[in-house]
Amino acid sequence: MSFFANTPEPPYYAVITSSVKEDEDTEYTRMFDEMNALAQNAQGYLGMENVRGEDGFGITVSFWNSMDAIRDWKMNARHQIAQDKAKEKWYASYKTRICKVERDDQFQRPHA
Amino acid sequence: MSFFANTPEPPYYAVITSSVKEDEDTEYTRMFDEMNALAQNAQGYLGMENVRGEDGFGITVSFWNSMDAIRDWKMNARHQIAQDKAKEKWYASYKTRICKVERDDQFQRPHA
Repeated sequence: MSFFANTPEPPYYAVITSSVKEDEDTEYTRMFDEMNALAQNAQGYLGMENVRGEDGFGITVSFWNSMDAIRDWKMNARHQIAQDKAKEKWYASYKTRICKVERDDQFQRPHA
Repeated sequence: MSFFANTPEPPYYAVITSSVKEDEDTEYTRMFDEMNALAQNAQGYLGMENVRGEDGFGITVSFWNSMDAIRDWKMNARHQIAQDKAKEKWYASYKTRICKVERDDQFQRPHA
């Protein structure tokens, strides 16, 4: 498994969600995994990159082929339940930014 | 100190850098702090959000008021040295995405 989403040539779209999480909670992990699995089948989904630090701050970036795909995913009924729960229990605060990816670049160090 | 960059109303620009880091290294920390301080004074810089997980994967998002500001920062002489060092020593791989932030949204749970 790679940490990196295998996104196509730009342009495409990204949702950057930065969040401060409360204490660990197995229900959160279960819901995160469920949303991840559900997104795989969502129209226009291109992949996801995710990190959470020990201090509770995390950044999740999901990638999409259109703004419509982002809107549809936001309105997905099961995802709406997850979003409500996140506000009620899991996230003390978050910030979401919806972006158009215009260029990208990558580097892989050659194996010695 | 907040984890969140205090960005203005969109549109503005974001550079998402996802990277896999090699083992800990005090020179990296010093250079990261230096670049952070240098960016504060860079033309068009709006802030930064950053997380590194225990597994070495991290996401840094820096925010800028224009594509020109991003280009100027990329070409900054001291920052170029840091970028070369990162490829040579610190990052096994990375992916950079340059984006236009079109919308944002935030949530802060009210204090009980």
